[in-house]
Amino acid sequence: MPLPTHVRIVEVGPRDGLQNEAQPISVTDKVQLVDALTAAGLGYIEVGSFVSPKWVPQMAGSADVFAQIQRKPGVVYGALAPNLRGFEDALAAGVKEVAVFAAASEAFSRRNINCSISESLERFAPIMDAAKQHGITVRGYVSCVLGCPYEGNVSPEQVALVARELYAMGCYEVSLGDTIGTGTAGATRKMFEVVSKDVPREKLAGHFHDTYGQAVANIYASLLEGISVFDSSIAGLGGCPYAKGASGNVATEDVVYLLNGLGIDTGIDLDALMIAGQQICTVLGRPTGSRVARARSAQ
Amino acid sequence: MPLPTHVRIVEVGPRDGLQNEAQPISVTDKVQLVDALTAAGLGYIEVGSFVSPKWVPQMAGSADVFAQIQRKPGVVYGALAPNLRGFEDALAAGVKEVAVFAAASEAFSRRNINCSISESLERFAPIMDAAKQHGITVRGYVSCVLGCPYEGNVSPEQVALVARELYAMGCYEVSLGDTIGTGTAGATRKMFEVVSKDVPREKLAGHFHDTYGQAVANIYASLLEGISVFDSSIAGLGGCPYAKGASGNVATEDVVYLLNGLGIDTGIDLDALMIAGQQICTVLGRPTGSRVARARSAQ
Repeated sequence: MPLPTHVRIVEVGPRDGLQNEAQPISVTDKVQLVDALTAAGLGYIEVGSFVSPKWVPQMAGSADVFAQIQRKPGVVYGALAPNLRGFEDALAAGVKEVAVFAAASEAFSRRNINCSISESLERFAPIMDAAKQHGITVRGYVSCVLGCPYEGNVSPEQVALVARELYAMGCYEVSLGDTIGTGTAGATRKMFEVVSKDVPREKLAGHFHDTYGQAVANIYASLLEGISVFDSSIAGLGGCPYAKGASGNVATEDVVYLLNGLGIDTGIDLDALMIAGQQICTVLGRPTGSRVARARSAQ
Repeated sequence: MPLPTHVRIVEVGPRDGLQNEAQPISVTDKVQLVDALTAAGLGYIEVGSFVSPKWVPQMAGSADVFAQIQRKPGVVYGALAPNLRGFEDALAAGVKEVAVFAAASEAFSRRNINCSISESLERFAPIMDAAKQHGITVRGYVSCVLGCPYEGNVSPEQVALVARELYAMGCYEVSLGDTIGTGTAGATRKMFEVVSKDVPREKLAGHFHDTYGQAVANIYASLLEGISVFDSSIAGLGGCPYAKGASGNVATEDVVYLLNGLGIDTGIDLDALMIAGQQICTVLGRPTGSRVARARSAQ
């Protein structure tokens, strides 16, 4: 299979990234981050999450962020909406695309979102209906696709089952996430091979964590399987690379560097991306998780 | 091309790694490191370098290290010998395998070893003769195979030229090094494709630096090209991951994790490897450069 000529990067730093950073940051800083990402040429930015700030204090003020960002035509500004209440809040904030979040592992689903996999899918049904009614597109996430912190192995068939359900419910794209970063290249390829029997490859995305240093290799492996959409996080936000328990979203800079090297178009300006990364690291007072950013700043 | 079923790891931490660390460490600590690596099942350990301590103070005492390590039958304990004087010192220290070091870039050759590429190859001739006479095997290194800090791009044809010369001179294996870590997966494959027209694939090794986060992906790309020998450095020694100017040898732990995931045998015990990495990081007083080691220690 030839490599794709174009890849779409879904920038998850402002949501999946900041949500997992230790301290919440201000609306102003979030707006600056999203605007810098827009300036760097990203076509999709996950801006925030409409959840109770009691549970996820880092995501407080998402509506304000949406109100203040400079929207560039053609760029998708998405938000996580875990339930109907969240969806309605997102709608009120002028969000045009939402994401829903399921797990491929029963144990992770119960511990992370407090219900079984099938219950989580049932909860999405009214969101899908409301989204259709309001012309909102919905993206689906499946977590733990290459391993679960509680169950260990997760079979590709189990991933396919959940991905198929989300696709059948109306998600236009399903992002498959190696939440704990334990996956390697062969397992990644096998997983996409199996899932793509149920969901077309062009409707699948890869979401990799670099916890075990495998994310860039897994993205290359996915490209070889015809996958052309990848989630990544500016500066590797979402896991301080030097702290214990690092979760480790793969850094957008490192993914763009790979794709540039492969001659695959992303529409992203790596220099501008680096500036966005520097800004948010200054705000957070932490070093970048991007090796490319580190190497370039050492020059 | 099917993936290889077995991979040989050439552990370069005690030489290429420590040589690039800020401060020299004691002979005792070096011996402890080599013995721990032997215990972890490595089949090849580059123990030291026979160069003037005036130029490379970190490598002082290599003869003492060789005298004190516990040699396990079947394991190769190699040393770098940049010239005939070094070779003779290595021979006197009981070394059975040496390595010589050339560059694929003229500018790098002149700045790094102070002579042209062809002059460097001429200097190796008497080493090759002496090695043959004493039954010593010689491994060749080529640096800057995917980019040069002074010249920028380096063509695969130029790499092939130098690799072919080393092979023709009697090097039983030629290790191709991405010294500055700028290479990506496609360029890696192309390079091996071109070089293997002149030197059989089974006589080539890959040596990757993780400076731009691409090393594990480049190793996977090399495996797809039928390469089955890789150099790596315990704990990513050879570039402090948190310092400016990080050089970034890929960490042996992260490579073994990839290979384990692919079902490729290395004969290495990852847990024992982790212990060796912890010990040397304690000695150096620096955090590990291995993501696998960091993730496991966070558990």
